[in-house]
Amino acid sequence: MLFGAGGAAAMRPGSAFVMCSTVDPNWSSRLEVRLAEKGILYLDATISGEITIMTEGADAAYALCEPILKYISARFYKLGAKAGAGSKVKIINQLLAGVHIAAAAEAMALGLREGVDPRDLYEVISNSAGNSWMFSNRMPHVLDADYTPLSAVDIFVKDLGLVLDTARASKFPLPLASTAHKMFMQASRRRPRRRGRRGGDQDLPGHRTAQQAGVAARGRPAARLHRRRFHGRHRPSPTISCARACARCR
Amino acid sequence: MLFGAGGAAAMRPGSAFVMCSTVDPNWSSRLEVRLAEKGILYLDATISGEITIMTEGADAAYALCEPILKYISARFYKLGAKAGAGSKVKIINQLLAGVHIAAAAEAMALGLREGVDPRDLYEVISNSAGNSWMFSNRMPHVLDADYTPLSAVDIFVKDLGLVLDTARASKFPLPLASTAHKMFMQASRRRPRRRGRRGGDQDLPGHRTAQQAGVAARGRPAARLHRRRFHGRHRPSPTISCARACARCR
Repeated sequence: MLFGAGGAAAMRPGSAFVMCSTVDPNWSSRLEVRLAEKGILYLDATISGEITIMTEGADAAYALCEPILKYISARFYKLGAKAGAGSKVKIINQLLAGVHIAAAAEAMALGLREGVDPRDLYEVISNSAGNSWMFSNRMPHVLDADYTPLSAVDIFVKDLGLVLDTARASKFPLPLASTAHKMFMQASRRRPRRRGRRGGDQDLPGHRTAQQAGVAARGRPAARLHRRRFHGRHRPSPTISCARACARCR
Repeated sequence: MLFGAGGAAAMRPGSAFVMCSTVDPNWSSRLEVRLAEKGILYLDATISGEITIMTEGADAAYALCEPILKYISARFYKLGAKAGAGSKVKIINQLLAGVHIAAAAEAMALGLREGVDPRDLYEVISNSAGNSWMFSNRMPHVLDADYTPLSAVDIFVKDLGLVLDTARASKFPLPLASTAHKMFMQASRRRPRRRGRRGGDQDLPGHRTAQQAGVAARGRPAARLHRRRFHGRHRPSPTISCARACARCR
């Protein structure tokens, strides 16, 4: 699209293209070169959270873009004169974000399975060495039965995929990132027709188990939901366990 | 020991035994019963960080122990009237702490491998959604070449082992915790004679790679250390990669 009609071809030489997506760092470097051939400036400006911008590019690109990017961001980082480093930092951030959200779900699900009060668990862990930004940000939604998607499962299928591609190119093993990637792929695959690509992070094991355990039941009686989920004909998956200590499950 | 000479046998009925270790929650419950037979009160009071105490036990045990435990703690939680819940919360906290420290090492090591400035990486991630208590607490030591052990590798071999035992008893899968456990076991096994059980968390891949990359070299010239580590006869492991973009390694 960028190089099709109405894309970079229509941009005036000396104007700047600002890349805000999380992309393969090598692809970002190549894009900088390709745009430079057309006299177009390039700023790699990946975005994280609310709202951190990690940038790198030539001085001329900064001259054009820095004021507006600083205006719209809470934190603005300049990481170098050539595209790529910001994308690398972003995918490493996504490595951690993805592992942490999957670990938060795994921990919360184990706690429910073991009959620990989820509010006690949240209160203690968010004040202890086990805390992460993702745990303290996402788990209150599990406690409040709020299953509004905050980020799509497929975002982490893609971003952890980029992490693994980058590491594979350098022959660098990432045991945790690849485990988390499998977990997100399973969550993404689980409801292809009902939610498809719109599936949210509420589809991760911890969120689902929390819901199934009756901690959160979207207003429906927890016991009925529990019976339907675990003892109906369409039990979703043998790896999703009943988190209640009910007679049929213990 | 507790039930041998000078142990519980010597304690007067009505006195209290306070358990501060991270132990199997079921073992803690059994200990409560066994001590009760001797008329000894029991308070499960697992400790985390600086210094959170998670407690449960009978009212009589609280009456004896609560004032002093509150005095020595920054945060004091009461999680129930029967031993076990605190130990469960603690091992779930350790699940997250162990996964997060291994993930922090994995992320930092990938960044170094990819040639990202480690201080930029730290600065951005500790202010982004990828942050964790472990990342912001441990990674500055990597940046500062401070390899003083802050916690023994074998602590996580034990604690993640307890996590996995608990989950196995409930037939609950923990993909990330078991991956992290393998990583700690590998780190523990790597230097059996030199450090043995005293091996610290600096032995995890990220810390080691950081050191090997010349970011931190304990005062020895980084280039020499790098050559010895990667191009000497005793290359430590095929999975530990050179994080420098040197001609022999790329």
